[in-house]
Amino acid sequence: MPQTLTEKILSRASGKEVSPGDVIEAKTDIVAFHDLTGYHVIEVMEKAGIEKVFDKSKIVIAFDHLAPPPDVRSAEIQVMIRKFVKKMGLPNFHDINFGIMHEVLLEKYALPGQVIVAADSHTTTSGAVGAFAQGMGASDIAAAVITGKTWLVVPTPFKVELKGSPGKWITGKDVALKLLQEFKADYFNGMSIEVYVENPSTFPMDYRATVSNMGIEMNADALMFIPDEETKNYIKTMRGYEPALVTPDPGAKYADEYTIELSKLEPLVAVPYSVDNVKTVNEVEGKEVDQVFIGSCTNGRLSDIEIAAKILKDKKVKTRCIAIPASYEMFRRAMDLGYIETLVNAGCIVTYGTCGPCLGGHFGVAGPGETIVSTSNRNFRGRMGSNDSKVYLANPAVAAASALEGKITDPRSIA
Amino acid sequence: MPQTLTEKILSRASGKEVSPGDVIEAKTDIVAFHDLTGYHVIEVMEKAGIEKVFDKSKIVIAFDHLAPPPDVRSAEIQVMIRKFVKKMGLPNFHDINFGIMHEVLLEKYALPGQVIVAADSHTTTSGAVGAFAQGMGASDIAAAVITGKTWLVVPTPFKVELKGSPGKWITGKDVALKLLQEFKADYFNGMSIEVYVENPSTFPMDYRATVSNMGIEMNADALMFIPDEETKNYIKTMRGYEPALVTPDPGAKYADEYTIELSKLEPLVAVPYSVDNVKTVNEVEGKEVDQVFIGSCTNGRLSDIEIAAKILKDKKVKTRCIAIPASYEMFRRAMDLGYIETLVNAGCIVTYGTCGPCLGGHFGVAGPGETIVSTSNRNFRGRMGSNDSKVYLANPAVAAASALEGKITDPRSIA
Repeated sequence: MPQTLTEKILSRASGKEVSPGDVIEAKTDIVAFHDLTGYHVIEVMEKAGIEKVFDKSKIVIAFDHLAPPPDVRSAEIQVMIRKFVKKMGLPNFHDINFGIMHEVLLEKYALPGQVIVAADSHTTTSGAVGAFAQGMGASDIAAAVITGKTWLVVPTPFKVELKGSPGKWITGKDVALKLLQEFKADYFNGMSIEVYVENPSTFPMDYRATVSNMGIEMNADALMFIPDEETKNYIKTMRGYEPALVTPDPGAKYADEYTIELSKLEPLVAVPYSVDNVKTVNEVEGKEVDQVFIGSCTNGRLSDIEIAAKILKDKKVKTRCIAIPASYEMFRRAMDLGYIETLVNAGCIVTYGTCGPCLGGHFGVAGPGETIVSTSNRNFRGRMGSNDSKVYLANPAVAAASALEGKITDPRSIA
Repeated sequence: MPQTLTEKILSRASGKEVSPGDVIEAKTDIVAFHDLTGYHVIEVMEKAGIEKVFDKSKIVIAFDHLAPPPDVRSAEIQVMIRKFVKKMGLPNFHDINFGIMHEVLLEKYALPGQVIVAADSHTTTSGAVGAFAQGMGASDIAAAVITGKTWLVVPTPFKVELKGSPGKWITGKDVALKLLQEFKADYFNGMSIEVYVENPSTFPMDYRATVSNMGIEMNADALMFIPDEETKNYIKTMRGYEPALVTPDPGAKYADEYTIELSKLEPLVAVPYSVDNVKTVNEVEGKEVDQVFIGSCTNGRLSDIEIAAKILKDKKVKTRCIAIPASYEMFRRAMDLGYIETLVNAGCIVTYGTCGPCLGGHFGVAGPGETIVSTSNRNFRGRMGSNDSKVYLANPAVAAASALEGKITDPRSIA
């Protein structure tokens, strides 16, 4: 039987040919956690009295939610996890000055065809390179850390085709929001989405990462881009080696297919209080904005910062704007290219590698009555702070244009 | 009678010739508050039902302690203060992307001979330009905001002379720590310190600001540098105009005098848990360090960042290092000079204009068992986070050298 990418990966990982609906035990190639969930992962291990990990080289830990620690409890958690890392001798540990876990996995670890599980819902991000990547609760991750295995229900594969090339100021965020507009937030429950890109170079890894990242917002078990030249180029550029590509077999069977003509997309905005309450930017433009956030595991990569810098070049923001490249590496590259300078000169507050504002954690929490335009991934009531704040999710071009004008703005109208 | 600087300023401000010990009502030239204390200032005004300020142009507000807001309560407080600012039409309001209040006062507002009161203990910082600057509680500041007046006991003036010029890696911090070592933290209760600098250009404004800032750690009512050429140059450079200088009369009488030979100073460190528990760096070097903080109203100015950058140039830190220029202006200048790039390339986490880690507030809170080297101003138990952390206060050269080596290090031994 010709296999989808989902079936191919999970057949290898379980050691038998799988079909949608099968309950399997899969070997995990990477098991990861961050500070906020890591505490619980370790707690579960300690309560079980188990002091081993299945393979030191396959555990990845990155501090991001509580980086740098916003309170004593957060600092305590990080101290506790550092002790665990030291005791276990884990080599792939990334402290507060490194980056957001999903971005770190993408930059350094994730490979096509892998099974990646991590204690955070946005683990789907690693699907951008064609890994079957799924977020799980801390107890499941503790089990995977110990055994190197996890149980899964094989999801039903669904195919999305991206045709043509995106127009100006259209990015991966608009593809993610288009899917949410079309299918809503629960349609893909029990499914995995496999995305085929017609013109790989015009839909680069940064865009793919945004779409995969928001796969979990669509309730998909995984959202994978079918590995192609862009996958190869990205990993070669970031890590210096060429990965083997894993692709679906010709004729593999999908539950359904959906095509997006990229050239027809408009900048989209998810308005309060649901990620699938999607409008075109023109339907909401003019709304006054109190704060803009550009960053997160969803949109904190180099191309996101580049887009913001292009729009803010030699200008001044009219509202508070917080710009956080998702990792040290992204900050450094953005700095080398002059983007950080552009953003700071425009009046943005910058730092790197923290989830802070995305989840209303710290470093820019939304106040009562405030309207936020954010490149992040969720806009339910209270997500970014006060229950009385409103979050509009958008791509970095819309976010930067909105910061510039102090109101929700179509970037096509100003740049 | 020839007058000290203290007497001259307070005589003008009270409209009568004053002597130490007099209880006076002084006109205030600047009244300031930040987000954390501003909430209480406004609360007092609202409870009193008073909706006016004495002079809109003389109120300065800067968000710094809660910038960017680390939790919903902080965001609420900022929203509330922004509403007050808007209702009152206050022009000198500086939101989260501007800078730490004491640095903003120094850069933009404070002048020789002024009386400045603000709702934060480190208001003494503005003494660097020769202003009588004192921190007060929120109720006193609310009264000053309404009336433009405050009551004071005229302190007893004490003179400090800085002779010669400081050696390599010796800064204002070492002068402050030297005074604390010599006189301890309570000697100057009821006194004002007036500092005469023999060679103004070798003890620049940044160094003076550090010493004045820590005047409150000496329990002084004010710590003023007698205005000179450096005062004039600083204000001209920062603001484009030359200030009138106010100086003590020849023959003015001081309670006592103390001379520091700058060339004889060594890098000093205040060790836990008291700011006057001062040792030479050589007495404590080798102590392992978990985190370094370079910044705060004490040491977040351009020369501090420059010193750190010189030490970290083309090197990598061995421990977490958080570097926060005290204001947007300091960050921008440091960026233009390549210092931010140097610090980031060395592995430091950067942002600007927040007090965060200094008071264990956010953005780098100390965990249990951790040792912190900090350029900030206090090291009592729990100041920077966990009650079980230890803070060593030092100048930026010691801090940067310690980050580089991962242990307390004499900068003279490595650069």
